[in-house]
Amino acid sequence: MMDLYTDNYRLFYATLTFIQIEWRFSNVFDFLGGKHVLRKEIVKIIDHTNLQPTATKEEIEQLCREAKEEGFYAVCVHPCYVKTARFFLKESGVKICTVVGFPLGANDWETKAAEAELAIENGAEEIDFVINLGFVKSGFWEQVEEEIKQITVRAKNKGKMLNKNIIVKVIVETCYLEEEEKIKLCNLVKQSGADYIKTSTGFGTAGAEVKDIELFKQIGGGSLKIKAAGGIRTLAKLQEMVKAGADRIGTSSAMAIIQEITA
Amino acid sequence: MMDLYTDNYRLFYATLTFIQIEWRFSNVFDFLGGKHVLRKEIVKIIDHTNLQPTATKEEIEQLCREAKEEGFYAVCVHPCYVKTARFFLKESGVKICTVVGFPLGANDWETKAAEAELAIENGAEEIDFVINLGFVKSGFWEQVEEEIKQITVRAKNKGKMLNKNIIVKVIVETCYLEEEEKIKLCNLVKQSGADYIKTSTGFGTAGAEVKDIELFKQIGGGSLKIKAAGGIRTLAKLQEMVKAGADRIGTSSAMAIIQEITA
Repeated sequence: MMDLYTDNYRLFYATLTFIQIEWRFSNVFDFLGGKHVLRKEIVKIIDHTNLQPTATKEEIEQLCREAKEEGFYAVCVHPCYVKTARFFLKESGVKICTVVGFPLGANDWETKAAEAELAIENGAEEIDFVINLGFVKSGFWEQVEEEIKQITVRAKNKGKMLNKNIIVKVIVETCYLEEEEKIKLCNLVKQSGADYIKTSTGFGTAGAEVKDIELFKQIGGGSLKIKAAGGIRTLAKLQEMVKAGADRIGTSSAMAIIQEITA
Repeated sequence: MMDLYTDNYRLFYATLTFIQIEWRFSNVFDFLGGKHVLRKEIVKIIDHTNLQPTATKEEIEQLCREAKEEGFYAVCVHPCYVKTARFFLKESGVKICTVVGFPLGANDWETKAAEAELAIENGAEEIDFVINLGFVKSGFWEQVEEEIKQITVRAKNKGKMLNKNIIVKVIVETCYLEEEEKIKLCNLVKQSGADYIKTSTGFGTAGAEVKDIELFKQIGGGSLKIKAAGGIRTLAKLQEMVKAGADRIGTSSAMAIIQEITA
């Protein structure tokens, strides 16, 4: 009887102590601006994205407004809305990212290169282009390498002409790739002069996976950056990606993620 | 007792007669080459399609071989495989169709026009391009009209330079459209000089629908042709589309459909 009482008492006391510590810790965290710091760390790696095929100009305007207010790193929009984003983001510091050969990548490389150049002329500062997946599956590695290099060089050169540093991200669409193809592609991207390898378009059969980010981190080392995109809809998922090594997050759920922190 | 006997006898006799008629009709149909005629009618309106993002050169070669053997009207492939198709279809009479701004259509119109021109240089004879759906949803009807006209004119002119008659199909992606938008778009396409209105990419939320074909037939009259595409995987579905007014069928299930006739 005495033992049971003591045990219950201990359990009750332990629980109470735990709650107190939790409460104190959470208060201290808030007092030191923990939520604020976390939020600040997170917004600055987010590409705030709307790539819906039916996205209206109004929706792009809203995306830009949110990006300015929250301090997101960039907006990511279709090429036809680059000029719109440029107008709404004037002198805001928010970067304009666009997509090229999107989302299938099965265009001629010349078309993708020209699309990138036009987007840069229109105001894009970051180019996320999709590789030719059919050529990967056909084993045409020389053509795959050549395409990645050509588009990267053409985009960077167009930037130089306009006195702008263009960031190039190569979308490899991991959901369609075997392990060996991921390794080969990561090495090609690393050697190409592109800045980032990006996991997914968000239009494939799956999005970013922790194991792929870890693989790219291992191969890319410090020099190649990683953008995780596709299916990142919660704070927990975003943090998983960052922990695995992602340097940038592409998501159309950025507002919901930010609200998770504030909540 | 007598009545029941008579009724049963009548039912039995009627069933037997029906089976006989069916049997005789089907034999006469075969005797006159019914299956052969049906098959011949169907293959000549099919665009034999492989637009998988991971399609290999080997798969495109197979597509071309099947198109030659079966006598399909055209093959429909991504721009990066137009040259491949040209090589494998040399002097076969099978047309080469490709897609532009595919499948989202959210590129700058200049990119789409240039993509079409390059594809024609590479050997494409039919251009299926996707309209700017975001501009439709934004109510930018002048820009939508201008884009359709510009791309059509640029494709036709490039064809003239190469002494080829280029067929232009305008993909409106019906799954995202309201009734009123479908009507407006069909009228714009009719006036643009394009040859076909095409229902779907096959990458949207739904494919070709009988009611849309009927609507386009009603508005387009005799002058505008209709290509039904997206989700046409059986002979019955194909026949529904033709009955509703479709002039061309885009499908990646053409071989299965043809086998249904032969079976």
